[in-house]
Amino acid sequence: MPELTVGVDLGGTNIKVGLVTDRGEIVHRHRVTTESQRGPEAVAERICGACRDLLAAAGSAADSVRGVGVGSPGTIDIANGVVLFSPNLVGWHDIPLRGLIEDGLGMRCVIDNDANVAALAEQWVGVGQGAGSLVLLTLGTGIGGGIVLDGRIWHGGRGVAGEVGHMSIHPDGPVCGCGNRGCLEAYASATAMVRRMRETIAAGTPTVLAEHADELTAARIHAAAVAGDQAARENIEQTGRYLGLGVSNLMHILNPEAVAFSGGVTAAGEMLLDPVRREVRWRTLEASRRDVRISLSALPEDAGLIGAARCFMLA
Amino acid sequence: MPELTVGVDLGGTNIKVGLVTDRGEIVHRHRVTTESQRGPEAVAERICGACRDLLAAAGSAADSVRGVGVGSPGTIDIANGVVLFSPNLVGWHDIPLRGLIEDGLGMRCVIDNDANVAALAEQWVGVGQGAGSLVLLTLGTGIGGGIVLDGRIWHGGRGVAGEVGHMSIHPDGPVCGCGNRGCLEAYASATAMVRRMRETIAAGTPTVLAEHADELTAARIHAAAVAGDQAARENIEQTGRYLGLGVSNLMHILNPEAVAFSGGVTAAGEMLLDPVRREVRWRTLEASRRDVRISLSALPEDAGLIGAARCFMLA
Repeated sequence: MPELTVGVDLGGTNIKVGLVTDRGEIVHRHRVTTESQRGPEAVAERICGACRDLLAAAGSAADSVRGVGVGSPGTIDIANGVVLFSPNLVGWHDIPLRGLIEDGLGMRCVIDNDANVAALAEQWVGVGQGAGSLVLLTLGTGIGGGIVLDGRIWHGGRGVAGEVGHMSIHPDGPVCGCGNRGCLEAYASATAMVRRMRETIAAGTPTVLAEHADELTAARIHAAAVAGDQAARENIEQTGRYLGLGVSNLMHILNPEAVAFSGGVTAAGEMLLDPVRREVRWRTLEASRRDVRISLSALPEDAGLIGAARCFMLA
Repeated sequence: MPELTVGVDLGGTNIKVGLVTDRGEIVHRHRVTTESQRGPEAVAERICGACRDLLAAAGSAADSVRGVGVGSPGTIDIANGVVLFSPNLVGWHDIPLRGLIEDGLGMRCVIDNDANVAALAEQWVGVGQGAGSLVLLTLGTGIGGGIVLDGRIWHGGRGVAGEVGHMSIHPDGPVCGCGNRGCLEAYASATAMVRRMRETIAAGTPTVLAEHADELTAARIHAAAVAGDQAARENIEQTGRYLGLGVSNLMHILNPEAVAFSGGVTAAGEMLLDPVRREVRWRTLEASRRDVRISLSALPEDAGLIGAARCFMLA
């Protein structure tokens, strides 16, 4: 019987848990709502409850479970297992999540940042399989990321590496929520797509989205582009070009073997990836881009829990 | 008696060799001209000759020498010990430098890129001492770099990581020699400083450098700034701000414990570092910049040969 590890993907809306084999397969899974409004201790108890249900459903297979890996949003003090701050979980400041879970389940636990563990999963059994190094960009309301080097998450000196969305691609660009100017996130997140689409509409460019200017989303822009709307297509094309610049910078700096995108904005698929790849081609040295894989996530639903389990295995 | 390693700093003009202890001290040193116009085999023989002279001068201390580390300009195939291409050494394409040196000296040899080994030296016994991670930016005609993570050079999948000078900081910036637009190198190298100073002069801004527009150098701009020339001061200030943006990007991505600058442009000292630090302060997340050291090289003359020796020790 293979050894199993519990992976936990803690999100703002749902908690996903799964039993993960040493080869990255999920043999049992379970999901509960997060109910973060009830506070950190209640969320930790919901995680423990979901894990207990998972282990009960697995029956005797649960005997070989070694421990629990958790991917959490926010800034994590990995050495001490503490969530320092999480903008997506209200009231989470200095929450000793690892200790709460270890006490609740009587099992060893490891926690890490959700984008970091997702990057680890992609490198392990996703688009980066066989590659030692991978950078993941998570494209949503903001842009996050994770960096895997030699098969391990690169955390940096203070544990906050991988903030690829806050690299500046324009000295005088738009002000970002972080205080910096010209962040990639301010050009290529879903929020930035919507802002640019509003500007396009305000400039009088014809588009079917003009009548929905107040309720724009990246998904609506994509739907309009698929339906042939030229302004919407140009919006996604431009988003891809900005992302390509960001990826090119990451390749010059880190020369990874693989680059992956995940998150809601990737629903645009090849319409987004095409301009990314074109931009990378002319901006990046041949030696650096040769053989590099630039792809959408291969594990859009499961990277979080697989990566969390992997994180425990490597600890 | 401590074990010793030969470090070789191969430059376009000079070859510097030294006997380096396990603590990074140079106990003997020697220097010869490169004479690269005589071709790669002749240069390899000059390296071997310089090493033989070094070992002879060291006397019985040479008995404990374990091998040779070489820092070479250009793109290196580290696994095979081959200099693939070196723009600073005419005619260097696919030169099996490691083999030439091993055959010439009868000792094991390791070669790596010169900026990489300099970064390793800074992390080991320079400004990054005690820090596991360091990014070095070499500021000269262009901008190169080296990245050390967990005390080892990060080479990337194809061995070309650390090209920090080619990260783009402006989507539509000046065209760089590499083909990309808006490279940091096109804003903050000595070449870029001179180009901007010429533009300042052409715009009619008063400066003592106006009469030297055709023979400007970064050193002259610095001298004028020291003498109180306002336009020259502004040039260095702006250079520092661009570098600060680049450093902030590296910090968001890698969260290193130390950042170091070396190369001719660093003669401007604090006049350059001040705006770098100011820019980093407002552009970078507090968690990422807390405790980070941003400094000029502590080993401006010796980083190459100390790092080359260290490279051998770690191989």
